Amino acid sequence: MFSFSTIELQKVKVQLEQELFERVVPFWERHSLDITYGGYFNCLDEDGSIYDTTKHIWLQGRQVWMFAKLYESVQTEQKWLDIARSGVKFLRKHAKTEGHRVFFATDRQGRGKQIQRKIFSECFYVMALNQFGKVTGELTYQREAIELLEHIWTWSKDLRLIGQVSYPGVRPNQGLAVPMILLNIFEEISGSNWSRYESEIRMCINEILQHVDSDRKIVFETVGLNGEFIDSIEGRMLNPGHAIEAGWFLQHWAQKLNDQSLQSRALEMVDWSFERGWDQDFGGLYYFLDSEGCPPTPLEWNMKLWWPHTEAMYAWALNYRFRRKESDWNNFMMTLNYSFDHFSDPVHGEWYGYLNREGMRTHQLKGGPYKGCFHVPRGLLYTIQCLEEIGD
Amino acid sequence: MFSFSTIELQKVKVQLEQELFERVVPFWERHSLDITYGGYFNCLDEDGSIYDTTKHIWLQGRQVWMFAKLYESVQTEQKWLDIARSGVKFLRKHAKTEGHRVFFATDRQGRGKQIQRKIFSECFYVMALNQFGKVTGELTYQREAIELLEHIWTWSKDLRLIGQVSYPGVRPNQGLAVPMILLNIFEEISGSNWSRYESEIRMCINEILQHVDSDRKIVFETVGLNGEFIDSIEGRMLNPGHAIEAGWFLQHWAQKLNDQSLQSRALEMVDWSFERGWDQDFGGLYYFLDSEGCPPTPLEWNMKLWWPHTEAMYAWALNYRFRRKESDWNNFMMTLNYSFDHFSDPVHGEWYGYLNREGMRTHQLKGGPYKGCFHVPRGLLYTIQCLEEIGD
Repeated sequence: MFSFSTIELQKVKVQLEQELFERVVPFWERHSLDITYGGYFNCLDEDGSIYDTTKHIWLQGRQVWMFAKLYESVQTEQKWLDIARSGVKFLRKHAKTEGHRVFFATDRQGRGKQIQRKIFSECFYVMALNQFGKVTGELTYQREAIELLEHIWTWSKDLRLIGQVSYPGVRPNQGLAVPMILLNIFEEISGSNWSRYESEIRMCINEILQHVDSDRKIVFETVGLNGEFIDSIEGRMLNPGHAIEAGWFLQHWAQKLNDQSLQSRALEMVDWSFERGWDQDFGGLYYFLDSEGCPPTPLEWNMKLWWPHTEAMYAWALNYRFRRKESDWNNFMMTLNYSFDHFSDPVHGEWYGYLNREGMRTHQLKGGPYKGCFHVPRGLLYTIQCLEEIGD
Repeated sequence: MFSFSTIELQKVKVQLEQELFERVVPFWERHSLDITYGGYFNCLDEDGSIYDTTKHIWLQGRQVWMFAKLYESVQTEQKWLDIARSGVKFLRKHAKTEGHRVFFATDRQGRGKQIQRKIFSECFYVMALNQFGKVTGELTYQREAIELLEHIWTWSKDLRLIGQVSYPGVRPNQGLAVPMILLNIFEEISGSNWSRYESEIRMCINEILQHVDSDRKIVFETVGLNGEFIDSIEGRMLNPGHAIEAGWFLQHWAQKLNDQSLQSRALEMVDWSFERGWDQDFGGLYYFLDSEGCPPTPLEWNMKLWWPHTEAMYAWALNYRFRRKESDWNNFMMTLNYSFDHFSDPVHGEWYGYLNREGMRTHQLKGGPYKGCFHVPRGLLYTIQCLEEIGD
């Protein structure tokens, strides 16, 4: 079994702590708070200046969750709770619309601008309220979260209820995103008392596992209703970062359920998706690939995005924690070094989000409609906590 | 007034004709025809092999239009009419669904897969049937086209009729795409007898002109209902290729309407958008820009796509035709040379579609959900015809 010096572990941990607490969290504290209307500005340029005041609700929810999570881990930081509270207030006042739906975006004042035929805005609303309720001990928040979760669960079983259209004769399929986010919510909402949701949790796990082809060592983004391969653009699409994230979501449950076989599968999902997704020529994880080598169609397929790298960093730390393989540690360090070399901004803080295949930065923004206060601090926090457990 | 040798003009014309008739049209003839179910395969790899059999209806409509247009210009080519007919049959049999709506995509056999809350699939259905009816002289096609156009016109005035949602308190805005496509359809459908649609045509022209800020020399993609600037991600967004295309659409109408002031404005829209959109460092037109230098948010903003270049090539030829400026010709040649150096494929034919900012190819596909048999052959054909008029 591979082992390295505690000095190296300690060094990495300090690097991550400095990044999180000196450069990432302060960026959001300094630039994102809307003290007039509450909630957060989430469209922030390189230096934190605001270039659009739209409030993207899923990012508002994520930021509430993140600050409440930070407060949970460092409880002396009262200001983090205040920041979370401002977002919760904004969400409860403005984010909901008829039929228990949650807007995708509101304007700065909170007037609804857009709604999606998807469940993700609702999911992050639930995560926000649940985590805030957890750290404040105020039960009303968790009650509201659980109530909305019940609607989400119903919708997730039949997306026509929120306006998605299905056509006769066209084979239905299932994506990875919905069972992933639901499983993550159940982890958040149930804590150690998960038996209440056991059947739902098992369903999510099984759905995710239907995306794993263990013969071919591939995690597919979209499969048929029985997990079968679909030979089309959608069916062949791989999203390595997403599959790696699914791996660590499952690993958390493997530990809770004390399920050895699930643990192995979760380890492998990270192995296989990283192996396939890492660009051997320029480094970094591709955003999308085609499993059969057909042309990927998304315009951004070969770009390197920040979030697959934060997910891979944590996933490798977690893999190392459970099997102590040298290659796990090496992949962890390779991902960490690529990320710090390419995404980190020592001047203004937070990470850049987008590079071209060659690793050159294509976007200077730190926050936008799809990037907020979430993957970077979560990845750093979880990795720090994991390194602590490795060191123990 | 600048003038160049007829030898140079002739040389360029031959280059474009060889590209169109020896490398572009044959690519689609060889690889796209579905002789079993009719219509066209539009997801084609570099060498023409099929990687998905989905039929994206707007591309089916565009290919019908293109082959019927080619047949109109070279009437000895009966096979082009046959190819167009196969697409028309597929469209009429499978593309329509309830409420006069047209699918965005069907499967190979024609079973509906997706519908958009947009009017573009319907627009290309109209263009296809109209052009096919025009070259065959069979009135039923044009009648059907005109009927559907009436629905499209109604929907375009209130997109809630096709499921778009508007929210109270949120300022409505107007995009460039809808009046552009409608104006293009009126050009196609009315021919020289446009007075029947005069009020609609004037409305489209006025709407497009509301996107032009002549003080700042900018063409905006989205403006307020009175043409006012909106300081947001959407309001600041520039799409230089689209604005250039709008320029030549208006130039066609300036000629028909014999409107000097419209002609000047159309010339300027090309000038300004090209000036702003051309990448001084690496060449090629950016896909999106932010008018105020804020961070563009689309992941593909700095990529170089094929279609802005085919539009710019034709637009510069047209600008040169009407004012004979040396810089028009130079910009025409610069666009043409960039396109042939970067997009053209002398081995397999048709053009590649996607490059990164530096001009390296990011996608090998020749056809996909958003690229079909349209911009390349249309741009080449129109430019050839324009060069003929310049040479006369």
